[in-house]
Amino acid sequence: MIIVIQCKDQVGLVAAISGVLAKQQLNIISMREHVDKQENRFYMRLQVEKTDANEAALEKELQSVLNTDAVITINPLPQKKVVVLVTKEYHCLADILIRNYFGTFGASVLCVIGNHDTLQDICKRFDIPFFLISHEQKSKEIFEHDVIEIIAQHQPDYVVLAKFMRILSPNFVARFPMKLINIHHSFLPAFVGANPYKQAFERGVKLIGATAHFVTNELDEGPIIAQQIITVNHSLTALDMMKAGKEIETSVLAKALRLVFEDRVFVYKNKTVVFE
Amino acid sequence: MIIVIQCKDQVGLVAAISGVLAKQQLNIISMREHVDKQENRFYMRLQVEKTDANEAALEKELQSVLNTDAVITINPLPQKKVVVLVTKEYHCLADILIRNYFGTFGASVLCVIGNHDTLQDICKRFDIPFFLISHEQKSKEIFEHDVIEIIAQHQPDYVVLAKFMRILSPNFVARFPMKLINIHHSFLPAFVGANPYKQAFERGVKLIGATAHFVTNELDEGPIIAQQIITVNHSLTALDMMKAGKEIETSVLAKALRLVFEDRVFVYKNKTVVFE
Amino acid sequence: MIIVIQCKDQVGLVAAISGVLAKQQLNIISMREHVDKQENRFYMRLQVEKTDANEAALEKELQSVLNTDAVITINPLPQKKVVVLVTKEYHCLADILIRNYFGTFGASVLCVIGNHDTLQDICKRFDIPFFLISHEQKSKEIFEHDVIEIIAQHQPDYVVLAKFMRILSPNFVARFPMKLINIHHSFLPAFVGANPYKQAFERGVKLIGATAHFVTNELDEGPIIAQQIITVNHSLTALDMMKAGKEIETSVLAKALRLVFEDRVFVYKNKTVVFE
Amino acid sequence: MIIVIQCKDQVGLVAAISGVLAKQQLNIISMREHVDKQENRFYMRLQVEKTDANEAALEKELQSVLNTDAVITINPLPQKKVVVLVTKEYHCLADILIRNYFGTFGASVLCVIGNHDTLQDICKRFDIPFFLISHEQKSKEIFEHDVIEIIAQHQPDYVVLAKFMRILSPNFVARFPMKLINIHHSFLPAFVGANPYKQAFERGVKLIGATAHFVTNELDEGPIIAQQIITVNHSLTALDMMKAGKEIETSVLAKALRLVFEDRVFVYKNKTVVFE
Repeated sequence: MIIVIQCKDQVGLVAAISGVLAKQQLNIISMREHVDKQENRFYMRLQVEKTDANEAALEKELQSVLNTDAVITINPLPQKKVVVLVTKEYHCLADILIRNYFGTFGASVLCVIGNHDTLQDICKRFDIPFFLISHEQKSKEIFEHDVIEIIAQHQPDYVVLAKFMRILSPNFVARFPMKLINIHHSFLPAFVGANPYKQAFERGVKLIGATAHFVTNELDEGPIIAQQIITVNHSLTALDMMKAGKEIETSVLAKALRLVFEDRVFVYKNKTVVFE
Repeated sequence: MIIVIQCKDQVGLVAAISGVLAKQQLNIISMREHVDKQENRFYMRLQVEKTDANEAALEKELQSVLNTDAVITINPLPQKKVVVLVTKEYHCLADILIRNYFGTFGASVLCVIGNHDTLQDICKRFDIPFFLISHEQKSKEIFEHDVIEIIAQHQPDYVVLAKFMRILSPNFVARFPMKLINIHHSFLPAFVGANPYKQAFERGVKLIGATAHFVTNELDEGPIIAQQIITVNHSLTALDMMKAGKEIETSVLAKALRLVFEDRVFVYKNKTVVFE
Repeated sequence: MIIVIQCKDQVGLVAAISGVLAKQQLNIISMREHVDKQENRFYMRLQVEKTDANEAALEKELQSVLNTDAVITINPLPQKKVVVLVTKEYHCLADILIRNYFGTFGASVLCVIGNHDTLQDICKRFDIPFFLISHEQKSKEIFEHDVIEIIAQHQPDYVVLAKFMRILSPNFVARFPMKLINIHHSFLPAFVGANPYKQAFERGVKLIGATAHFVTNELDEGPIIAQQIITVNHSLTALDMMKAGKEIETSVLAKALRLVFEDRVFVYKNKTVVFE
Repeated sequence: MIIVIQCKDQVGLVAAISGVLAKQQLNIISMREHVDKQENRFYMRLQVEKTDANEAALEKELQSVLNTDAVITINPLPQKKVVVLVTKEYHCLADILIRNYFGTFGASVLCVIGNHDTLQDICKRFDIPFFLISHEQKSKEIFEHDVIEIIAQHQPDYVVLAKFMRILSPNFVARFPMKLINIHHSFLPAFVGANPYKQAFERGVKLIGATAHFVTNELDEGPIIAQQIITVNHSLTALDMMKAGKEIETSVLAKALRLVFEDRVFVYKNKTVVFE
């Protein structure tokens, strides 16, 4: 059983929480705690040995010893549900489909929405519904309306932007607060915006990176979940960098999603607390 | 204030410990906990906001809520004391002397003992006593006796083997249980023993490593504290690998010592729990 | 056009080779050269701008300026052909199938042979022939004979052991010299043999690795192509390490295969020269 | 003997160069070559076996087979000479002083110039002249004039900015084209300017970096020589990040200087070609 708690910090929180658990004879296997002194926030993730404990009762009891601002989640859905948005690049989607098929994704893929049909066939091969919603010859408003409709039908916990190359409007983003997870093909905040590999090539950097983050209204500015880099050198063209970058894009997105699905990621303002 | 606790695991430990702290209005800034299910051991490191709490009273109260097997250390010496053993290679010692001189070592260097005089001058430049104890023309027993005598005079918390190239006898090791910290120039357990870089070169590996570990009687077999690797390729000779390896030897030993000095390392049987 | 040359070293090789190319007005875009002084071997990989040069004539001319021991390969097959051997674990195979399907594998997968049927369905989904050859209730000799027969029918350039968990006999290995590429789930030469993650867990290492290598008759002893590691700590069980290890196994095998397919890997005795 | 050549690209350069060497019976041990197709530039670094070859004659002969734009350097000074500029932070300077003292720096330190006296004592301990030139109560022009005067007296090959915290004027920079090497405490181009660790903390990044680069007139915009990163997380304050960053600053600067001193770094426009 996983218990995650976020609230305002104060003396005695750990004692209050662990006291409730001890009274119910629940054994804590692992506990991660962080206090953000600057923001005065308290974050905790507990793993306790599985029992037939009544979760609703436990949550009520925890709530009774904490302030009313505390957000407590007990035994979160063992299996999150996701919708994936794509354009043409296959690498992140394929990785997700493979993990989903073999039951190691930590979530289930409800459907894939693409603004091109390039990735329709791979979805079909895995029996995952693919919805083609072209952005051409229609306003962004209508395009997004169509996408939102499909998402709404599926009720996902998260929407994964797996190399989805359209910038989403504030209206769209507002519909899914902290539920949109994007992979950006640079080491943010370097190379915000389009063509980061071209920017990296022109700057002559010796490392390139990828960043998985929650999407907010500021372009490429949401809370960062995970980042990785690989080394590059003068022998790589911008195209070579793009190819090399795909490997870490895949790997960083996979890691970020695993962390989110395992309830290891807390968000507050524009930052994350991640208990790896 | 840092509090570290190691004991047999049981239900209610966190509640008992944090209850004591809460009663004294001590605020927990960061808490790391680990339960080794296989060994049924409980490990905890707490950082609480500095107060004028009576440490002896606090320790007594903690002891009263825990089993008698619990090892509790409160507010460990802010400044550990170390003796450093060296042979001829300078890189690890120099790094230690620099940090010691600028007050960022997290410990103080009491003296250096060398079985060659190569590093005498660098110690002198930093006003650190250097004791030359040659191993030549004497038995290992007498050599070690002389070294032990110097160490005993200085009463260090730890003895750091900073590229000390003599194998120590079981008798020597038994004198300093879990107080001897060594840097081994390979990614253990690969390339145990002498000339690991030559072994690595001949095997044609693509990575070489370094390992900092506590010394036990089994050669290169003690509990591992930290390890790092760097990539190598066909263009490096065994000598090049040795040179490249020095950089990570320095870095791994520095990291391991920092972790030990900050009371982040627990030892049980032949393994460590490290709260980085 | 790629040109790779391996021969005994002597003065003037670069001049002789580049002289031939210059005479034909071939522009060298990138050139990698290595001399192994210990073995007195010369290795070179050249990329020249594509032209309608007559390859056979060029090879003849190069041969005429080099000793008879020189192995010259010009414009190697743009698309190598491979047969993949698997058991039950999917991660390496799935990665290969995905790259193969999207045309970024650098080789084409002719068929997959498994000693269990676990991975039959995923192959079917990608229209790749899967041959089930159980090792049960038959001698190793007969099992290997059956596998060899399937391989022989397909005439691959390489046979990839993508988590194939049977130890191959010297007889089998001798049939495919330097054509068998294996992924071993440890940082060789640490943890040779079975259950490396269990061994790593018990030793309490802080890094675990994976190694891609050519297979020779000595178990886990062939020439190493690529290695990578990830950091681990006390909180991982042997099973967690195995899970975490799958990610680098996939990544290391993919990298090694790319290097081999791009003719960047030379083998001599038990080592490789890799021009990354 | 090391030979480095940079010139406009054309067919036959390798043949022309290696032909000259072969005629003189010079054996090439290692050769690195790169052609920048976009800029049409040719870069080569050759290591040939030591002989009593006449360097001046060899250079003349090489020049005769290349265009007049070719920059050829043969057997560059085995020991470069450097002046180091510092402010208050010790880590980079101390690393340089240690390597210099033990003869492994690949260059010799002529003197250190500081705008504070913090690092005077450490220089004295290593018998390295330290010049205190305060920037206080004088114009930038006069301050820089004083610094330039000291540098001019010492005639260094390179000036190393080892955490020198004053922004240099275009006039100063113009005096030392591609001779000023700086360590910037971020993963450029992220976090240009002051307080990069504070910027990184506020953005909530999961990696922080350091960049060694040649100094040009654009702040933090010169050609990058080397970059590295380390992982960070929510538990680090901006101050912790600064501390952690010092380790890679030291390491990246050391690496960049080694590459430059070994003539492995070519500069063209705002980029480097680095033959590691």
